[in-house]
Amino acid sequence: MTKTLSFEALSAESLPGRLAGTRALTERIGQDTAAWKVREVGDGNLNLVFIVEGAEGAAVVKQALPYVRLVGDSWPLPLKRSFFEYHALTRQKARAGKVVTGFPSGIAGKQSVSAGAIVPEIYHFDEEQALIVMEYLSPHIILRKALIDGRRLPNIARDLGLFMARTLFRGSDLHMKARDRKEDLALFADNAELCDITENLVFTDPYFAAPMNRHTSPQLDRLAAELRADRDLKVEAQRLKHLFAANAETLLHGDLHTGSIMVTDTETRVIDPEFAVYGPIAFDVGMALANFWMSFFSQRGHENAGSRDTMRSYLLGVVVETWAVFRTEFSHLWRTERTGMLYHRSLFEDQGDIFGSEQALDRFLHSIWVDLLGFAGVEIHRRILGLAHNADFETIENEDLRAKCESKALKFGRHLAVNRHAIHSLDEVNALAELIERETVS
Amino acid sequence: MTKTLSFEALSAESLPGRLAGTRALTERIGQDTAAWKVREVGDGNLNLVFIVEGAEGAAVVKQALPYVRLVGDSWPLPLKRSFFEYHALTRQKARAGKVVTGFPSGIAGKQSVSAGAIVPEIYHFDEEQALIVMEYLSPHIILRKALIDGRRLPNIARDLGLFMARTLFRGSDLHMKARDRKEDLALFADNAELCDITENLVFTDPYFAAPMNRHTSPQLDRLAAELRADRDLKVEAQRLKHLFAANAETLLHGDLHTGSIMVTDTETRVIDPEFAVYGPIAFDVGMALANFWMSFFSQRGHENAGSRDTMRSYLLGVVVETWAVFRTEFSHLWRTERTGMLYHRSLFEDQGDIFGSEQALDRFLHSIWVDLLGFAGVEIHRRILGLAHNADFETIENEDLRAKCESKALKFGRHLAVNRHAIHSLDEVNALAELIERETVS
Repeated sequence: MTKTLSFEALSAESLPGRLAGTRALTERIGQDTAAWKVREVGDGNLNLVFIVEGAEGAAVVKQALPYVRLVGDSWPLPLKRSFFEYHALTRQKARAGKVVTGFPSGIAGKQSVSAGAIVPEIYHFDEEQALIVMEYLSPHIILRKALIDGRRLPNIARDLGLFMARTLFRGSDLHMKARDRKEDLALFADNAELCDITENLVFTDPYFAAPMNRHTSPQLDRLAAELRADRDLKVEAQRLKHLFAANAETLLHGDLHTGSIMVTDTETRVIDPEFAVYGPIAFDVGMALANFWMSFFSQRGHENAGSRDTMRSYLLGVVVETWAVFRTEFSHLWRTERTGMLYHRSLFEDQGDIFGSEQALDRFLHSIWVDLLGFAGVEIHRRILGLAHNADFETIENEDLRAKCESKALKFGRHLAVNRHAIHSLDEVNALAELIERETVS
Repeated sequence: MTKTLSFEALSAESLPGRLAGTRALTERIGQDTAAWKVREVGDGNLNLVFIVEGAEGAAVVKQALPYVRLVGDSWPLPLKRSFFEYHALTRQKARAGKVVTGFPSGIAGKQSVSAGAIVPEIYHFDEEQALIVMEYLSPHIILRKALIDGRRLPNIARDLGLFMARTLFRGSDLHMKARDRKEDLALFADNAELCDITENLVFTDPYFAAPMNRHTSPQLDRLAAELRADRDLKVEAQRLKHLFAANAETLLHGDLHTGSIMVTDTETRVIDPEFAVYGPIAFDVGMALANFWMSFFSQRGHENAGSRDTMRSYLLGVVVETWAVFRTEFSHLWRTERTGMLYHRSLFEDQGDIFGSEQALDRFLHSIWVDLLGFAGVEIHRRILGLAHNADFETIENEDLRAKCESKALKFGRHLAVNRHAIHSLDEVNALAELIERETVS
């Protein structure tokens, strides 16, 4: 083993020497390190990511850095996030991978045994080096990039809906033993620095002139100022922050945007759960939907090679289908795997009362619905007014055009966040999105 | 030191020998252990409690037992609850003891510097023996007993309102550093067995034929069956359980009933926080108010020495004043100590927007209001239909009379739990209590 004792960042050059003794890796890609080809491909905000190809195969090596890569070493960030990513991946594998049995109708009838997004396989974890060696996903590409390119992936709504329903249901007191969830909650409570990033970058910084904010300027200056003076919006954003910080309902992915999803035409994989923390079910769902809506509003900026009308329809369809699949699968798990301490069968089914647990399910889903709209709204804002922006908008080179797209998304997000308690259905939300898209551009 | 290495339960006989070397104790009550008088006075459900009187003073020694005292050694319970009680007491001391400064008007104008309930002083904590040596409160008596005796304590509403506002506000993300709250949350998450008692005994067991339940039978059989078949009530109770289990808003006392409060005419002290856990602010408040309402409905059973009309009016007044003081103090802390990450001033006051944070405060208090009514409702039910009953009702020897009192309380509790979202004010709730009290008895 050439592994050093204290943390040292890898480089493409040092990686073969440093990992030559890691059998979980050499068994898969070959022992001849001289033949290894190493590329650093990390385009995220936080970490180093290498693809290592050997004579017999390939793997990904992801290493945390002791600071935020996007900002530099002026913003230190604990290496321990790698530990939480590892633990989140193992839990998600167990929860998302397990196929629901006995599905009477609906989704399951149409789904293959492997349906539903799963996480990459882990080969090796080195806590001290904050390093995870995992499956190289090929020919998968980042979903966000596919959507920018105008590709319509046929399975993502189904796969993502199933992934969220399974991981979020099975990580809650609806399914887990209370003791187990509390122990796990205590473990992940230590992921405080990453959680702090979410808390401040998503819910607070976009709504005042925080130093690290940026936006397309001067085009969005007026709208940014307007939103930062919008009392109802800010109060709602803080209610959502409170919900995120206090409502430790389930183990979240915590950063489930289209940049954390890798796809082929047939497969969907979810990566990068280092922001994993206990929080409200609606947070993951809202963030995921927000990213499809942002893709929708960004399409106008990518029409140089032709109209994106079909793509826009496709994206609104993805939103509707993701939520529908989520509801169906969540409801099925509610009926078949509700083994935790909440809404125990002794109070309902065991007394012959089916309607009781169905009534509770309706209310439970309604509460997720109301909150996901809010989380979606603030997620949109923070990607346009905050520190971490999306390639969907960022790759639109014409700044006036980009600002137009962003402006529509901002107004849409404001509507969701402030009116979430009164919004009836996704069909109506999508109709509004189409209205905004048409009216402010044409 | 005669302290043994592993846990051993104290007895009145062994206590002097075992604690002779505990300087924090001998300094206060005298070194001559032969002169110590030891009485075991624990009338609670869980622990041993001794009063030790020496030549120079007295102290209380509270020791956890490795099982539930009320049930016996068939129900093991970890000694570690003593650790959580100790840590809760130290936090409550810091939070409740600190008097608010700069109070412009209202409560503070009328309050002395020492106003507000505080916790007993801790002299010594022995984690291994699960033993806390603390202040002997004299001539304080248990508030529940005072209320059964028909005593009207003039300060409890003010003191309890202040205690709850201060401990619950200052233990939340409204005031604490996010990192500190998360660490503390992780610490208290390990108090899972005690939390499990609350979760099951308060929110689930009363609503089905759980083995350890009991109620005044046969008088209440029909009503108990009716409530256990009441779908809306059970769904609501489970929503409240979900809120209690998932919404880790602040460090709760966790068992804030009138048996956890000791009083004189001028002083109010809060004891026994071994159920401390992170949970919703409304839980402590709702439980406290529920116990005053139960006292109200139990008064009819204690009228052998004369009418309790004045006592009943007093109790409804206590409910109103407790909530009013809580709101006033909580609002003042909101305006002066909102130093945490939620509703940060950078979004409101720092932008010259006072109304923004006031709007948020109104909503915050409204949400506490709606939830406290629910928690009050289920607390009432579990004290009459579950395992742990209240002396308020239990000391009514005539079972028909007791059942009449209990029946009124049960119906009142059902109304609160199910209709909490639509209930306007405590005045109306109290008017309903009076109506129920008159109609079903006369």
